[in-house]
Amino acid sequence: MPRTDVVKVILPESEIPTAWYNILPDLPGEPLPPLHPGTGEPVGPADLAPLFPEALIMQEVSSERWIDIPGEVIDIFKTWRPSPLYRAHRLERALGLTPGKQRIYYKWEGVSPGGSHKPNTAVPQAFFNKQAGTRKLTTETGAGQWGSSLAYACALFDLQCEVFMVKVSYEQKPGRRTLMETWGATVHASPSDRTESGRKILADHPDSTGSLGIAISEAVEIAAQSDDTHYSLGSVLNHVCTHQTIVGLEAKKQMDAFEDTPDVVVGCVGGGSNYAGLSYPYAADVLAGEANTRFLAVEPDACPTLTRGTYAYDFGDTAGMTPLMPMYTLGHDFVPAPVHAGGLRYHGDAPSLSGLVKAGLYEARAYPQVPVFEAAVMFARSEGWLPGPEPAHALKGAIDEALAARAADEERVVLFNLCGHGHFDISAYEAFLGGELEDLQLSDEDLAASLATLPPQPANA
Amino acid sequence: MPRTDVVKVILPESEIPTAWYNILPDLPGEPLPPLHPGTGEPVGPADLAPLFPEALIMQEVSSERWIDIPGEVIDIFKTWRPSPLYRAHRLERALGLTPGKQRIYYKWEGVSPGGSHKPNTAVPQAFFNKQAGTRKLTTETGAGQWGSSLAYACALFDLQCEVFMVKVSYEQKPGRRTLMETWGATVHASPSDRTESGRKILADHPDSTGSLGIAISEAVEIAAQSDDTHYSLGSVLNHVCTHQTIVGLEAKKQMDAFEDTPDVVVGCVGGGSNYAGLSYPYAADVLAGEANTRFLAVEPDACPTLTRGTYAYDFGDTAGMTPLMPMYTLGHDFVPAPVHAGGLRYHGDAPSLSGLVKAGLYEARAYPQVPVFEAAVMFARSEGWLPGPEPAHALKGAIDEALAARAADEERVVLFNLCGHGHFDISAYEAFLGGELEDLQLSDEDLAASLATLPPQPANA
Repeated sequence: MPRTDVVKVILPESEIPTAWYNILPDLPGEPLPPLHPGTGEPVGPADLAPLFPEALIMQEVSSERWIDIPGEVIDIFKTWRPSPLYRAHRLERALGLTPGKQRIYYKWEGVSPGGSHKPNTAVPQAFFNKQAGTRKLTTETGAGQWGSSLAYACALFDLQCEVFMVKVSYEQKPGRRTLMETWGATVHASPSDRTESGRKILADHPDSTGSLGIAISEAVEIAAQSDDTHYSLGSVLNHVCTHQTIVGLEAKKQMDAFEDTPDVVVGCVGGGSNYAGLSYPYAADVLAGEANTRFLAVEPDACPTLTRGTYAYDFGDTAGMTPLMPMYTLGHDFVPAPVHAGGLRYHGDAPSLSGLVKAGLYEARAYPQVPVFEAAVMFARSEGWLPGPEPAHALKGAIDEALAARAADEERVVLFNLCGHGHFDISAYEAFLGGELEDLQLSDEDLAASLATLPPQPANA
Repeated sequence: MPRTDVVKVILPESEIPTAWYNILPDLPGEPLPPLHPGTGEPVGPADLAPLFPEALIMQEVSSERWIDIPGEVIDIFKTWRPSPLYRAHRLERALGLTPGKQRIYYKWEGVSPGGSHKPNTAVPQAFFNKQAGTRKLTTETGAGQWGSSLAYACALFDLQCEVFMVKVSYEQKPGRRTLMETWGATVHASPSDRTESGRKILADHPDSTGSLGIAISEAVEIAAQSDDTHYSLGSVLNHVCTHQTIVGLEAKKQMDAFEDTPDVVVGCVGGGSNYAGLSYPYAADVLAGEANTRFLAVEPDACPTLTRGTYAYDFGDTAGMTPLMPMYTLGHDFVPAPVHAGGLRYHGDAPSLSGLVKAGLYEARAYPQVPVFEAAVMFARSEGWLPGPEPAHALKGAIDEALAARAADEERVVLFNLCGHGHFDISAYEAFLGGELEDLQLSDEDLAASLATLPPQPANA
């Protein structure tokens, strides 16, 4: 029986994991390499050198299962790690779950300076860039969680930081912009007139609300222009997912301390990194035949990559400058409706996570935003924390898993990643409480039109 | 020698203190009782019964040194307590302190759901009211830290919550208002037309930006009208300061874990509760002759109660409905300039804290807001956390203590209370970074005019 006398488990600093888990060597099937956008040939380390330092490129393609975390990075992690893992006692009661039979746990990543899981990769990315002599990092950001976390990490290592922020979020969340500036970053609303990619979009669509794909194009363009400037991505890539596994590695120790084991692991998915972070250490056990955990990826109805997208090679950005990656995609020039979960407005998904969905190991589900905010307010009034709009999707998925088990009179242990707080998304709560939040759906016509712009699929795919 | 291999100390849940420290029996000199505003006679428990439940009234006047914390309250504290205590390694380096010679520590209370120390008293106040059959709590709030914390606590105990928010903060910090509403509270900008006190102020001063004194009058007026409605105060009173001592009791254990002892304990002071909370358990040792710790209370230039106010009997509110309390005051109808540290805009101070300043055990210092925000940005770029404008005053005091010791080539250990985050004060950072923040000073003329309105001092004072 699990322990019931504990609300949260916080491990001591000495229990911070000292190596990241790299899922690449354990993935089912033959690996599908990323392809060069011009030649269609598999991308090699040299192709990535203009954008990333060598250490991160080696992590991107590594076939090693474990990658050491540098001591300097662990020292900074001690600012907020290990993060707490909670038993949601009060939420369970509010939901009327069968006492002890359906149990909900959550990993709480909102305790970082950036307010989410994003510093878990921002700090090592800044560290490895600093080591390689980089002077400036460029990046994109949706809701601002990633941009502010990179701004924080750059401040620690005395790196310049230039952020392209999706315009709809730039306007909805001015607090996030100021937060980035407080940490010393320069922030542009994207599409901007600072880049060729941005100017092209603005010429065709002067009222564009922006997208992560567009912002990536702008950040990559700036980075490619200077030798001392690199690009930093907050999700999707393998080294990012690998950095985030510190979340799941801690969670496994903490669930052990609760003397309990999850039946289903839930997370929200934009590019996939927070969910990869929590779930891959659990997936490793399933892939090794040692567990039969279920996995549930949750996304917004307005950007239903896993549930309505196509598995194909596609660009990571809108302008077609990045390698072609095998993933679920809505088409690289897809511009999602301006839902408040800015971090989930990405047309693609991490290739590793896409592969696990394609292989049937991971389930996926999409929700409209109004019931997601209903769940978030219920959570705030029971557990206390104000979820970000993104993890509120994971919360909604976790609640539905527990309620389904209650309806079936089954035991079920649900673990989800509460990957960030909503303090800078408070205008979304204001809209919800004021009855002004809309459920934004993607029409079949818009989806078909977007998928029609997929690039020709390579012969070796 | 102190431990240097540790960034933060987090105690396990089992180390949450089980009793609060009540400083009343240890205060120097004869106690000066609060006086009835009508009769001028010492206030008895019966006089407070319309506003507070019996359990809190007994704590207010208790002569017991230790007061047990109910188990139900400790269970909720486990949501965020024990809070972490940090060694500010990175700030020390940014300041260029002599390595190991000047050492800065901070207690981090921004980890609570409300984002500050305020839930430490909101939760027990809601608990004792629920036990007494209260159905609704009214209160005032400045920056919104207190109002949102009481809203959170009321949500946990299914109590209604009505908050009067100082108008300048209501307008500067709409996010705080939405946060209170997310937790289910009703929020009014004060002065409001909901009360007699508010209507009177509006008639005389239609453009009033409000003050804590005015908001208290409004909240007390509503509470006094109904038997099932009580009033809840977030600072000043003895039971509030007592509840906050959980901060200092934890800090002492954590400093022991660091194998270090503070030479000076620093905090910001509005009503005094966060600083009382951190410092009283240390003051107990000084009052018992067992330590010679220094104490530094920091306040804003715009509301310099301890540094330029008068020690006298005064009302806690503007309308003169509360008991007369012996304290440093700027006059009960003082309306401070609209500095961003809304929680420090109170005309008086806790009687216990005022007494310690009067007795010479506590020092006090005032700062203008621009250098306070310079310190806050430096802290964000080194330690990572975004301080609230209020604890940024404590931070500034702590930095100056450490720099003074460096200049004198002395060893000095500084401990301060980082009592809340600034996520909902981001507009203040925007103003600072944009060069639009002003140092708002109180003129001698305005101070003299305000002090001239002090009530006649009672014969027995």
